[in-house]
Amino acid sequence: MPRCSADALRDYCYQVLTASEVAPDCAAAVADVLVDADLTGVSSHGVSRMAIYLQRLNAGLVSRTNQIRIVRESPSAVVIDAGNTLGALSAKFAMETCIRKARETGCCFATVRNSNHFGAAAYYTKLAAAQDMIGFASTNLNGKIAPYGAAEPFMGTDPISIAAPSGGKPVVLDMTPSVVALGKLILAQKLGQSIPEGWALDREGNPTTDPAEGRKGSLIPIGGPKGSGLAIAVEILCGVLSGAGYGSQLHDLYVMDEPQGIGHFIGAIDIAHFIDVDSFKSALSAMAGEIKGLRKAEGVGEIFLPGEQSFNRMERNLREGIDLPEPVYQELLDLGRPFGLSL
Amino acid sequence: MPRCSADALRDYCYQVLTASEVAPDCAAAVADVLVDADLTGVSSHGVSRMAIYLQRLNAGLVSRTNQIRIVRESPSAVVIDAGNTLGALSAKFAMETCIRKARETGCCFATVRNSNHFGAAAYYTKLAAAQDMIGFASTNLNGKIAPYGAAEPFMGTDPISIAAPSGGKPVVLDMTPSVVALGKLILAQKLGQSIPEGWALDREGNPTTDPAEGRKGSLIPIGGPKGSGLAIAVEILCGVLSGAGYGSQLHDLYVMDEPQGIGHFIGAIDIAHFIDVDSFKSALSAMAGEIKGLRKAEGVGEIFLPGEQSFNRMERNLREGIDLPEPVYQELLDLGRPFGLSL
Repeated sequence: MPRCSADALRDYCYQVLTASEVAPDCAAAVADVLVDADLTGVSSHGVSRMAIYLQRLNAGLVSRTNQIRIVRESPSAVVIDAGNTLGALSAKFAMETCIRKARETGCCFATVRNSNHFGAAAYYTKLAAAQDMIGFASTNLNGKIAPYGAAEPFMGTDPISIAAPSGGKPVVLDMTPSVVALGKLILAQKLGQSIPEGWALDREGNPTTDPAEGRKGSLIPIGGPKGSGLAIAVEILCGVLSGAGYGSQLHDLYVMDEPQGIGHFIGAIDIAHFIDVDSFKSALSAMAGEIKGLRKAEGVGEIFLPGEQSFNRMERNLREGIDLPEPVYQELLDLGRPFGLSL
Repeated sequence: MPRCSADALRDYCYQVLTASEVAPDCAAAVADVLVDADLTGVSSHGVSRMAIYLQRLNAGLVSRTNQIRIVRESPSAVVIDAGNTLGALSAKFAMETCIRKARETGCCFATVRNSNHFGAAAYYTKLAAAQDMIGFASTNLNGKIAPYGAAEPFMGTDPISIAAPSGGKPVVLDMTPSVVALGKLILAQKLGQSIPEGWALDREGNPTTDPAEGRKGSLIPIGGPKGSGLAIAVEILCGVLSGAGYGSQLHDLYVMDEPQGIGHFIGAIDIAHFIDVDSFKSALSAMAGEIKGLRKAEGVGEIFLPGEQSFNRMERNLREGIDLPEPVYQELLDLGRPFGLSL
């Protein structure tokens, strides 16, 4: 499998994007968000998305420049219209704004509307954790999960990420309310693999192991009404509170018809307004240590905190480079070739 | 089955508590929180908890008076020490404080430490929804859920509630990250019923249908690492950020050794700082209508939004009265008898 350093991969993505007339600030944000996902082993949300991003940019469905505008601002609330800017820049701007304002007031939340796919939610919450804050990030997406009791999809595979700093690695939860993220189906399809039963239903509502059929049908939520309810809550925050719209009103990243029009809900809680930061970090480290030291379930070698395995993979990938599956690597080369760029 | 009006039940609980020398503000908060749960059909968190609350009060494990103190305050952050006050009053105070401050700044979050069992989390988020805000409430509890990969419990059955107002009924999610709440096991044990497989594991980590064995073992989280991660996130917010402590440091409501020492994390987001409130409510009503109108899964008569069935039960119970299972009714009568009180 081809292997690249994170720096080389980030630089290549940036070069391809700017060669495609994407503004430098937009290109840098996208390259950083995607390569961070590959670094942490979340390849479903990594550079494998470059092709579709460029396809949408070239089709005029996403703005090539920063069109972000603060529509309304209170001490602890920000309303952002992304103006169809790339999701990576819009969400990063939202989190940086929340971090700045939370430092003053204790916490701040932002809604973002008219935005686009922002990659892995954990990227943004880690920005907050690095500033000694607890970060929250979520986005809505067009309908892929069926509400509990329904036979057709409505809510997106709306991720929820929460990150908090500790004395060691931050604890970073990043989950969709479905059993798996849509990215897992997209990658399986790209790699020609089947998916396990229990991940998705086909258009008729029957279990399927074909990722293509699952993408046409719906993803299964965790815990029945609970995962369904979490996804509805994210639609309320990202779609209704932001004014972006919800499930049925949003557009699919992979359908070349309209701007996605999705919304994000992003926030930061400044730990220092609640408790001494060092006490917080050492208490979280102690808690993490206690969890890791628990009696293990049969067949389990190590108990991991949320995000811990991602950080382990990042450390290894920073040292050894990022493995790119052959189809993803070839696709990346195809994207740079017209500009004489090579990875 | 004996049936009482909500007013009569609330008044009886208040009388029993004040007769037991609980201060009027504490008694009123507890009676209202418990009866609200019975009204909405969540009887596991209703007046069936009166007996254990009184047992703890009489054992000196919970304060009979309001000992709540704001330790630190920022424009959008509040740190509360409950001073071992009853959880109902502490959490209600926290939410009311957040609502007041969110009106000014856009949002506010509060941590509460040294608190006690607060009943159903939905009670507090509904207070925010009634003020045109989005409410958040969670609490930690002593360890009952095993982290993903562990064979013993660590996190509590930490509920997460989110509520938002619509043009009709508010949407109110209230869920624990376990397949069922501990209250369901407690009630099953009280009623002498067995529980379905998939709810709980015994002390050895094996599936059990005996609620007593499940209470000694651990509850199963939804979605493996996802439900486990959500519970860890709640422990971070309610236990580490609040300074209350987490799973292993907390005390069981049903063990008469120490104050529970639990923490809450409560907040309000003022919709008006983000979007016109009427637009929000009508958009949420429209979304709810679309969800209810989806094609139904086989065997499903109606699709319900989170909290919708609770509101339907409340409307019926306000009209027809609350059915109390015989053992719960007898227990309540026993509590009032020493004071000459009768229901």
